[in-house]
Amino acid sequence: MNTHNFADLVVDAMKRKKSRIVVGLDPQRDHAPEALQIQGLGQTELGGTTGMARQWAIREFCERIIEATADIAVAFKVQIAFFEKFGSDGLHILERLLNEYEDMLFIIDGKRGDIGNTSEAYAEEFFHHEGEDRANLLCDAVTANPYLGKDSLEPYFRYMRDAKGVFVLCKTSNPSSADFQDLKLESGEPLYVTVARRVQEWGQEFVGDHGFSSLGLVVGATYPESARMVRAAAPNSLILVPGIGVQGGQLQDAAAFCDKNGQGALFNFSRSIIYAYKYGPTPEDHHDSKFAEAARKAAEHYREALNAALGEP
Amino acid sequence: MNTHNFADLVVDAMKRKKSRIVVGLDPQRDHAPEALQIQGLGQTELGGTTGMARQWAIREFCERIIEATADIAVAFKVQIAFFEKFGSDGLHILERLLNEYEDMLFIIDGKRGDIGNTSEAYAEEFFHHEGEDRANLLCDAVTANPYLGKDSLEPYFRYMRDAKGVFVLCKTSNPSSADFQDLKLESGEPLYVTVARRVQEWGQEFVGDHGFSSLGLVVGATYPESARMVRAAAPNSLILVPGIGVQGGQLQDAAAFCDKNGQGALFNFSRSIIYAYKYGPTPEDHHDSKFAEAARKAAEHYREALNAALGEP
Repeated sequence: MNTHNFADLVVDAMKRKKSRIVVGLDPQRDHAPEALQIQGLGQTELGGTTGMARQWAIREFCERIIEATADIAVAFKVQIAFFEKFGSDGLHILERLLNEYEDMLFIIDGKRGDIGNTSEAYAEEFFHHEGEDRANLLCDAVTANPYLGKDSLEPYFRYMRDAKGVFVLCKTSNPSSADFQDLKLESGEPLYVTVARRVQEWGQEFVGDHGFSSLGLVVGATYPESARMVRAAAPNSLILVPGIGVQGGQLQDAAAFCDKNGQGALFNFSRSIIYAYKYGPTPEDHHDSKFAEAARKAAEHYREALNAALGEP
Repeated sequence: MNTHNFADLVVDAMKRKKSRIVVGLDPQRDHAPEALQIQGLGQTELGGTTGMARQWAIREFCERIIEATADIAVAFKVQIAFFEKFGSDGLHILERLLNEYEDMLFIIDGKRGDIGNTSEAYAEEFFHHEGEDRANLLCDAVTANPYLGKDSLEPYFRYMRDAKGVFVLCKTSNPSSADFQDLKLESGEPLYVTVARRVQEWGQEFVGDHGFSSLGLVVGATYPESARMVRAAAPNSLILVPGIGVQGGQLQDAAAFCDKNGQGALFNFSRSIIYAYKYGPTPEDHHDSKFAEAARKAAEHYREALNAALGEP
């Protein structure tokens, strides 16, 4: 295994954990377990604010989910919007989490895309390891938007030579992804297939020993037909698949996202794992106080279901 | 004037200030005036860290630029990456700035685009005025990426009914904007023109008394030919034009971005105003210690040049 290649690190973790599961950390206050909210408020009796209570509850919630699922999750996908929403306080919580669990793979789902020196700033924000300018939000991979073209991704490339990864949005799981992504080009193929083709091309220099590239793609679980076309256009892409569960994607379609051996795709579960105590596959665990155990059981459930459908990774 | 319509607020400010200038706040440490860097380090002698000195210098720099150009700038465009790069500390500086100058229009240039509840989280992050959940990064408008389609923009719409605006990326100023934005569709027109057409359609309900919509577009100054096609496809769009100056856009092409009366476009200047003491149009002001005066002079220079080319707004 090439430890300087993100895709190899991912495939290695998949094999070691016999898992294709990514756990999505989208901490929403309305859904935070009541037990934690009360405990958080308890902290404020010694002079804290409700803002501090909220922060405490979010951090505690994320930590307990991470610890309960660490041996099943190939990576954690952090939806940065849910932290940014609380401004600098929210980012501070995220910084602490990234720092605390350095041995886990973290994907920051920011869907950023910008140009020139701004794009450089994002690459440094997430990937820069060295010196005084060490990134505060240091992570292993990010998601990025393709609309601005290759030069908007290039600032990430030099970090990709040192074990970092980028997942480029290709076909997203929302209904309006049809508005532009599905538009047919003169060539006859939809825009998202051309995006896949270009990413396959740009990602060649980042193909690891396992045959997958650290320049991957995001394809929503709700579009297995699209996934087949993407897979054909981008055989070396590691594909990150959000949208199974709450968003309507089906486990039985998982093979569409993989190569012919059932490899090369990671499946993200957010609400259906972290809020399993509300939405999870085993109703007997729908108890507020057991949210971490419920998350673990849900992660195990989805891991086994995917392995049953696709074989072990 | 309709004070609940962002486009009207903008046009009103343009008329009042006789200006089409947006000042882009992209504070890059390497370019911070040396005088401020030294002063910032001075602050640390009483026990601060170099991180604190850096923060102090960035905040001081932005404040002095804002104050020096406030009567010329229709709005300030904040490139959030340059704050986020410093993690929670950087966002904290930005929060203070937004809070301090509440009477100015601020556009946060984050180029975000996401789906469902994540998109909701971004809309709240930037636009939510009320109660405990008041946005920390409260601003007047944001930039957004269209690749995810209409439902990714909809969470902003309810705030747009109350004086908020969104500028959707259409044709960006970088060379690789050709990679996907220029692809010809089956219909024969390039993707970015279809984006303009859809945004024109979605923006109808936000057209203000001056005839422009609060759902605007971003078109790079480096592509005046494209701007003419965008203007034809989206006559009601307020167009935000980055890229004049350092990126190579030319003032004499400004009319391409406007309607037939020279109205409806805002021109953003970042480095060529805020770093005018290095790059500005009047070399006699290339002195580190006069950075604020140099910024003001550069802003005046570009305001007059645009008014000479297009008439007063």
